[in-house]
Amino acid sequence: MPQQPRDLKPLFEPAAVAVVGASRSQAKVGGLVLSNLLEAGYRGRVYPVNPAAALQGKDIMDLPAVASVAELPDGLDLAVVCLPREQVLAEMRILAAKGVRAAIVLAAGFRETGRLGFEAEMELKRIAQDAGMVLLGPNSLGLISTGCALNASFAIGQPKPGGVAFFSQSGAMCVAVLDWAMSLNMGFSRFVSLGNKALIDESAVLRYLGADPETRVIVGYCESVEDGGEFMAAAAEVSTRKPVLMLKAGSTAAGARAVSAHTGAISGSPAAYRAAFRQSGVLQVDEAEQLFGLAQAFATQPLPAGPGLAILTNSGGPGILAADACARSALTLPRPSTATLSRLTEILPGFASAYNPVDIMGDAGPQRYREALAALLADSQTHAVLVLLTPTALAQAEATARTVIEAANGEENPGKKPVAACFMGREAVRAGRELLQAAGIPCYDFPEAAVEALDALYLHFRRTQKQQPPATSCDGELSRGACDAPWDEEARYIVEAAKTRGLIEISGVEALEAAHAAGLPVLTTGLARTSAEAVRLAEEIGLPVSLHLATPEPGPAAGAWTGGGIGFGGGGAGGGFGGGGDPEALGRFARLRDEAGVRHAFLALTSRAARLRPEAYVTGCLVQAATGLPGQGGFELVAGFTRDPQFGPLLSFGLAGVSSELLGDVSHRLAPLTPEDAREMLREVRFYPLLRGARGGSVVSLAALERLLLSVSRLAQRLPMLVGAEFSPVLAGPDGVFIAGARLTLG
Amino acid sequence: MPQQPRDLKPLFEPAAVAVVGASRSQAKVGGLVLSNLLEAGYRGRVYPVNPAAALQGKDIMDLPAVASVAELPDGLDLAVVCLPREQVLAEMRILAAKGVRAAIVLAAGFRETGRLGFEAEMELKRIAQDAGMVLLGPNSLGLISTGCALNASFAIGQPKPGGVAFFSQSGAMCVAVLDWAMSLNMGFSRFVSLGNKALIDESAVLRYLGADPETRVIVGYCESVEDGGEFMAAAAEVSTRKPVLMLKAGSTAAGARAVSAHTGAISGSPAAYRAAFRQSGVLQVDEAEQLFGLAQAFATQPLPAGPGLAILTNSGGPGILAADACARSALTLPRPSTATLSRLTEILPGFASAYNPVDIMGDAGPQRYREALAALLADSQTHAVLVLLTPTALAQAEATARTVIEAANGEENPGKKPVAACFMGREAVRAGRELLQAAGIPCYDFPEAAVEALDALYLHFRRTQKQQPPATSCDGELSRGACDAPWDEEARYIVEAAKTRGLIEISGVEALEAAHAAGLPVLTTGLARTSAEAVRLAEEIGLPVSLHLATPEPGPAAGAWTGGGIGFGGGGAGGGFGGGGDPEALGRFARLRDEAGVRHAFLALTSRAARLRPEAYVTGCLVQAATGLPGQGGFELVAGFTRDPQFGPLLSFGLAGVSSELLGDVSHRLAPLTPEDAREMLREVRFYPLLRGARGGSVVSLAALERLLLSVSRLAQRLPMLVGAEFSPVLAGPDGVFIAGARLTLG
Repeated sequence: MPQQPRDLKPLFEPAAVAVVGASRSQAKVGGLVLSNLLEAGYRGRVYPVNPAAALQGKDIMDLPAVASVAELPDGLDLAVVCLPREQVLAEMRILAAKGVRAAIVLAAGFRETGRLGFEAEMELKRIAQDAGMVLLGPNSLGLISTGCALNASFAIGQPKPGGVAFFSQSGAMCVAVLDWAMSLNMGFSRFVSLGNKALIDESAVLRYLGADPETRVIVGYCESVEDGGEFMAAAAEVSTRKPVLMLKAGSTAAGARAVSAHTGAISGSPAAYRAAFRQSGVLQVDEAEQLFGLAQAFATQPLPAGPGLAILTNSGGPGILAADACARSALTLPRPSTATLSRLTEILPGFASAYNPVDIMGDAGPQRYREALAALLADSQTHAVLVLLTPTALAQAEATARTVIEAANGEENPGKKPVAACFMGREAVRAGRELLQAAGIPCYDFPEAAVEALDALYLHFRRTQKQQPPATSCDGELSRGACDAPWDEEARYIVEAAKTRGLIEISGVEALEAAHAAGLPVLTTGLARTSAEAVRLAEEIGLPVSLHLATPEPGPAAGAWTGGGIGFGGGGAGGGFGGGGDPEALGRFARLRDEAGVRHAFLALTSRAARLRPEAYVTGCLVQAATGLPGQGGFELVAGFTRDPQFGPLLSFGLAGVSSELLGDVSHRLAPLTPEDAREMLREVRFYPLLRGARGGSVVSLAALERLLLSVSRLAQRLPMLVGAEFSPVLAGPDGVFIAGARLTLG
Repeated sequence: MPQQPRDLKPLFEPAAVAVVGASRSQAKVGGLVLSNLLEAGYRGRVYPVNPAAALQGKDIMDLPAVASVAELPDGLDLAVVCLPREQVLAEMRILAAKGVRAAIVLAAGFRETGRLGFEAEMELKRIAQDAGMVLLGPNSLGLISTGCALNASFAIGQPKPGGVAFFSQSGAMCVAVLDWAMSLNMGFSRFVSLGNKALIDESAVLRYLGADPETRVIVGYCESVEDGGEFMAAAAEVSTRKPVLMLKAGSTAAGARAVSAHTGAISGSPAAYRAAFRQSGVLQVDEAEQLFGLAQAFATQPLPAGPGLAILTNSGGPGILAADACARSALTLPRPSTATLSRLTEILPGFASAYNPVDIMGDAGPQRYREALAALLADSQTHAVLVLLTPTALAQAEATARTVIEAANGEENPGKKPVAACFMGREAVRAGRELLQAAGIPCYDFPEAAVEALDALYLHFRRTQKQQPPATSCDGELSRGACDAPWDEEARYIVEAAKTRGLIEISGVEALEAAHAAGLPVLTTGLARTSAEAVRLAEEIGLPVSLHLATPEPGPAAGAWTGGGIGFGGGGAGGGFGGGGDPEALGRFARLRDEAGVRHAFLALTSRAARLRPEAYVTGCLVQAATGLPGQGGFELVAGFTRDPQFGPLLSFGLAGVSSELLGDVSHRLAPLTPEDAREMLREVRFYPLLRGARGGSVVSLAALERLLLSVSRLAQRLPMLVGAEFSPVLAGPDGVFIAGARLTLG
């Protein structure tokens, strides 16, 4: 349910601010906030509210004290409530009555402390909502808005202005990030501690920052999001305009458990978050350190128009380390063009390497750096340049920094290609590094971090090039035409009837029928209880057919006791593995071509089952069409969905059986799927080249597979009483895609 | 060919040092070296050699100048040769004649500059070798030995003493590492710039450092090693005594190409280096930054006796990030014991989480940190503790650092469990961090880096626990009993005969015969040119048999045009893929049980081949035994070797066909394989659980597979004229392991 976007201007750009609970003492929150406000040079009017001081007619930090919130002017933009928890609700009621437009509540002791705190927080939220007041917090560290010189926080330190906006669910991360950023001389446009997110959450802040002209890149830290659908909608909209980087704590199962222990919230699965970020254009980072490196690059550099990275270095080792990092990224190391090579050969001494990495030798001075950099920037194969400098005896870090700045920001870079630097070492290159940073050229400690940042720029560029806008909501309806497979309400009736019967799972023929009605490409299948029935069904369906043992027991057991399941393909020379032998060992007979074969298969399967697992309940055999099935070289795939508590249906796609899960080669997306999402799901798995016919694989109809995924997405959306579905195996070959097995799970 | 270990004492601990080419000017290398020597406080005698100064009777830096190297005392320990390249050889001859025991040659312009330089370097090496002189360089930055206050380098800065020894092939990396380390206050025992490694290489230095009582951990940077076998021998010996960390530049294919461009050396493959490091107990790191974090932990902390990590934190977010990092490592997050939980509950306020991560809340002062740390250190499930601190308003970084030091280094840590810290932020925690570092508790900027370092300690512990010593040489003979399969010299005759005939590859029956003679478990196979021959062979071999098309064309084509190759296993419920149909599509017939079947199969295969690929040269069909073959649920594997230029035979193991290579799921080891190596090769692939019967896989005889790998290793060693071999498919099931196809490549 998308909310009405709230006007956050009174919060981020207030014309006047009241500090409720202002104090003279820096040991108190109310003192820290007031002194931060004044020290940052806020130019609007400031009202310190402190009854005792007002009673004594005293000033607080040279401002006349206000006796109570009741005496504040009506319609004030922002009140920073620095009071202890016990006093917050009463004062907030008065602020609401006065028409104060925004409030920041700093006190902790609300939702995070249990039931009573939760109720107090709900009351706080109601007060703000009823008054149409913007509420940040509670349990927030406050907010910094460098554009209007506002520091309404009790954080320590004043960040300088810049293009990075940061928001965080964790106050601790705010403190640490601010401290780090100041030592890196990183500038911020806005800095927001979300706290408990009673009203204003990451989605609302994202929308504001997306429209904020002072913000170039948005960086967020979260443990959970409040509303998955609204977050995706906001992020999808904003990420088309500017890069959004997110560090999600709890990106592993163990981390997610720690999040639950910490916030008490039922969070979505790590896979669902990953899919949500990707589908809404958010760049997810996995480690805290990356946030800084990436933010600096995005805040200062243009995007590269392609993957070609030129590495310019005065020493071999660091150049090689950068090349290694490049090989682990989406970037490439193009060979310089002939023109560039001959230009470089003119510039460089005899033993230098003009190839990429371009090693201009340890004795390279600023001039050689500049000429080589200009030559590389002029090369059409180069989309970005990384300048490496090691403080050799003859290196001139400061002077080189100056020429790099001139070349990168001047006429030698007419194409506005991004330039990053890595000056190796610490003290010996400090001055050069600071010059670069100050001039907006990000400079890294290690080559790997520099390549990682340029890689992120390129990945973002690639995303912005996609025509198709990402999905805008996780619970909206599919865009028209996204799934053109037929839909029969029979699918709903089958599922509802099963639910009425109290079933928790639908499998076998029934599940295949539901899937068929939902527009999925299902093999015609019938259940035969006797061999005669099997023969009749085979005639109805049309020969050839396959026979499989049918048992209502859950899947894995069936696979295991029929002894079937695994068998990896050959393909080596000179050999071959007896795939054709002993069909009765498989729990199935494939491609039976006549009545006798069908009868024999039925008896063989059921008698073997009775012999090996007399306790199993065997309902008979499934008789399944076998026309058009892919032969050797085809694939057994799996597609399905589970329902994520935060983001709704999470689709998955991979190889059937064991290998996919074991090898972690599964792709995920959230419903509703766009055709582009479906395409990406196929391309993302490592075995994708096989589907395109690599190394003897069948060329599979990707269109048919995409259609299948879109149909699964629609099924998940139309039948909310399904908590999950698995279609396995999905047989795919050049002649089409066929579902041979299905299981639907009911809520 | 292992060299005689050289005595490096005159180099690292000289009683007296001559600086040849000493200068008063710090702008000259000879001046930098002399002033570094004096500044470091070297206590031995120093002889500055400078003819001009001596002629004028002048002192150099308060030392009487020596007129020429001829006037130096005989048998001097160390000469640092700071002369330009042109003068080096002549002076080195005199130094050699004077019996100087060790020399460092700083000048560049040798091997790295082309043929003339290479010849000069060979001459330099001869001079040193003939005189039994230890030679470091040329093209070295020099050497630092803090134990005897020796700084014989022109690097800038004096590192403080400590337990870390560093050596590097790249002077640039030396400069950068030294600069970084000084800003991190990291101490070194020895610091060595290897330069061109004309004589003293990484192996010689490793052996010295292994025996050096002042060195606790050895850290190296290399682009290539000089002698693969000798390096492995040295590393294997040393790594049993102390940890060896290596950053290998060129760990990717692109990086390896950059190494070749830089050093001109033909280096081994990245996979071979990875295997060499692993088999000799070296911990390979992939990024420069990791070197520092890991070295600090190894230099100061004991090894954890298990994987259990307790995370102690004053804020949720960083704790979760640490838990995420832990999930990506080999460490675990055990739940504290009941006793620990009740102790923690006593200590902690109401809302704190006593589970792991243990969140002691933002208002935690030093006392609460100390008590919680003591409780965790006392827990038998805890093998290591990570202390996280975020500079919240109430956090006391310095005081907390002090209590952490007391607890970790005192009575509260009787089990000597390793403790690491991460104090988040920069300025706000600087003092606390410095206290920790100074007291030998590594303190990291980010939680992920801290977990990574503790993980490395644990991995090293696990390695030291292995009873089996690693292989000691890559060209020695297998230890007795490692490969007990029979060996028939027929294998050698087949390969030699093929070489005589000018063949570059042996395949088909011949390759299988050679493999059989080499003790590999090969399916009995014959080549039939006619259907009658096929029937006769089938009778000889014994029914059932399989038939395969035989063509001398290289493997992949054969796989592709028979349309066979790929087919991933099913295993999903309710479905099944027609593995039994259309055998003629496969280019093979499996498990033929009678004469008619064999005859039919022969005709079907050859006529189909003639129809589809009339240009192909078909020699007939291979008739292969099919008794005892695994049925569905078995595996098609591949094993083989290639010959690495640096490290010799590199064995590989994976799934046959396409999946393994595509999914990067291949394990590598260098020959000779120990039984332990063979076991690890099996356990290292991601599909290993399938071989143990997971999810319907056949339980494969691991002993048989290990035996196979040991036999391949022996084959690679006994027949050096083979440049490679591939055995594929290797059919593995409960009844055994059978090679159905082989290809041997000749040099």
